[in-house]
Amino acid sequence: MSERIYNFSAGPAVLPETVLNQAREDLWSLAGTGIGVMEHSHRGKAFLAVYDQAVALCRELASIPDNYKVLFLQGGASTQFFSIPMNFLTPDKTADYLVTGSWSKKAVAEAKRFGNAHTASSSADKNFNYIPQEVNYSDNPTYVHFTSNNTIFGTEYQTEPENPAGSFLVCDASSDIFSRPLDISKYGILYAGAQKNLGPSGVTLVIIRDDLIESGSADLPTMLQYRTHAENDSMFNTPPTFGIYIMAQVFAWLKDQGGLPAIQKINEIKAKKLYDYLDSSKLFQGTAEPDSRSLMNVTFVTGNEDLDKKFIAEATAAGLDGLKGHRSVGGMRASIYNAFPEAGIDKLIDFMSNFESTNG
Amino acid sequence: MSERIYNFSAGPAVLPETVLNQAREDLWSLAGTGIGVMEHSHRGKAFLAVYDQAVALCRELASIPDNYKVLFLQGGASTQFFSIPMNFLTPDKTADYLVTGSWSKKAVAEAKRFGNAHTASSSADKNFNYIPQEVNYSDNPTYVHFTSNNTIFGTEYQTEPENPAGSFLVCDASSDIFSRPLDISKYGILYAGAQKNLGPSGVTLVIIRDDLIESGSADLPTMLQYRTHAENDSMFNTPPTFGIYIMAQVFAWLKDQGGLPAIQKINEIKAKKLYDYLDSSKLFQGTAEPDSRSLMNVTFVTGNEDLDKKFIAEATAAGLDGLKGHRSVGGMRASIYNAFPEAGIDKLIDFMSNFESTNG
Repeated sequence: MSERIYNFSAGPAVLPETVLNQAREDLWSLAGTGIGVMEHSHRGKAFLAVYDQAVALCRELASIPDNYKVLFLQGGASTQFFSIPMNFLTPDKTADYLVTGSWSKKAVAEAKRFGNAHTASSSADKNFNYIPQEVNYSDNPTYVHFTSNNTIFGTEYQTEPENPAGSFLVCDASSDIFSRPLDISKYGILYAGAQKNLGPSGVTLVIIRDDLIESGSADLPTMLQYRTHAENDSMFNTPPTFGIYIMAQVFAWLKDQGGLPAIQKINEIKAKKLYDYLDSSKLFQGTAEPDSRSLMNVTFVTGNEDLDKKFIAEATAAGLDGLKGHRSVGGMRASIYNAFPEAGIDKLIDFMSNFESTNG
Repeated sequence: MSERIYNFSAGPAVLPETVLNQAREDLWSLAGTGIGVMEHSHRGKAFLAVYDQAVALCRELASIPDNYKVLFLQGGASTQFFSIPMNFLTPDKTADYLVTGSWSKKAVAEAKRFGNAHTASSSADKNFNYIPQEVNYSDNPTYVHFTSNNTIFGTEYQTEPENPAGSFLVCDASSDIFSRPLDISKYGILYAGAQKNLGPSGVTLVIIRDDLIESGSADLPTMLQYRTHAENDSMFNTPPTFGIYIMAQVFAWLKDQGGLPAIQKINEIKAKKLYDYLDSSKLFQGTAEPDSRSLMNVTFVTGNEDLDKKFIAEATAAGLDGLKGHRSVGGMRASIYNAFPEAGIDKLIDFMSNFESTNG
């Protein structure tokens, strides 16, 4: 089997090797059925066992209360950006958005099509390099929407923001879902594209409270009503079966690691190593404010674009792939999601130290 | 490697074994990159090569004219059911629907939310066991929508229906796409969920004419405008990369078979064997009218529900899986898409003959 390299991609991203190995078996024949996992009917016993496992492990990992449904949808977070206001906003209602980067901005733009979208906080003044503490809520927001982790800018909410009484909290957790324990009861809706911490692109995990399923607009295309998917166990139409299968495998792997408290410790150790090195480096600087730093995406620069380019090229040649930062920040970004191995962090730090010696 | 069985599932369905074997390699490391296909950034060189291959092979196989775009979307045919009227209908416009089964009926229901949906033909009078020849178009339809193959009822349009001047033709080709040559220039929009003839569930192929991309409503959520996906080469947001990868592999396999004319001959041979046996059998009868028979889904009954059940149970035990018919027709259904091997048809016919000898 060919050698694998360290993959710092921001998403789609590295998956656990045990999951990949199991998937290679199951692509050919799932659980001894003689039919591969992609080829099984979504209504058949073999896939239903996969689906049941995915839901049960998801609920167990995050201690999801009984009054929430777990849905596997399509269309990514971008589809949730419009589905949520389409279901819950009207021109006389207001939703509050905490704007901490590109994804929140896109979510605001879609909300404006359906009602009032009030920017209750923003870190745009410093190119989104921090999580704002000051929030100015509107009088009576229907919901408060935030992005828990900002892939591009390397920032992350350290705890959930408060939301005013009478509103519900909505979170785009695409890039840090299940990287640490979370209290689902604080949320009305929590959603995440799978392609960073949960599986392949093409499946979106949506955890939604029952009363919101009931209160969402009933006057929408069938596929855009949450009740459609809740009432049909995400199988109103053919779900993305392979993506759900991989998520089930990733959930099982997470449980084997010790669940969310254990993966949080591992993630903290991994990120601390890299941030400690950045804080000690004379060549590299982290771009996010220290109290807003992400455990998932570590952004840094040398302050010299040519040197950044040289670093990225040499790192890539050394088997450290995907380190180029997003164009809106520049520099470098190391995405170190749950499945990214600590050994890859050590190798990156070694490489950075050597680069600093030669180019500092 | 464990033995595989014959999988007659209506979808998700059997895929070519050469594709599965290649996918098992590429899950671990795509094209020697040291990163698996699910883990590659959709913006990176390795995945872009996959995407380019998928588009190029799709265009080549179906001789797609230059004024059409090939899109890879999410949400299945069910999402197209509402997206098309949402983009092209208004309360003062009418779309004509040819209703030949459950899927067409669902498409009509979504269209009614946005404008007038006129049922121009229907085979509901005979439980959809035929393709109606008589069509009563409305005066000035915006488009004419039909379902080229009806998975549940085992019927298939033998050629495209005509559509009135000034309208465009829309086809849900989910269950027979690329099973035979087709003249794309006759269509405005042709769409297909991948999970029957093209790949895994979770990716929808949409072939759409440029003028329709331009004329679709600009007042919709970004993700629901075709122009969004056309202008961004299906990468406005993270596309379902693994599904696109499998489609590229299936397209390559189709080309190796000799393309659409060759696969049509193979499909005709496969289906003819089974229909010839049904026509000669004293126990089994096909349920679709002979001139409307599908090359993809062969539906049949014994006329005795208990005997049907016995047949299905014994066939399953003999490694012929997925033969249970849809509840709205009952009996049996053999789905024999492109990738279903002729040897599996031979085995089914042998099994049916033996069953007939014992139970006839």
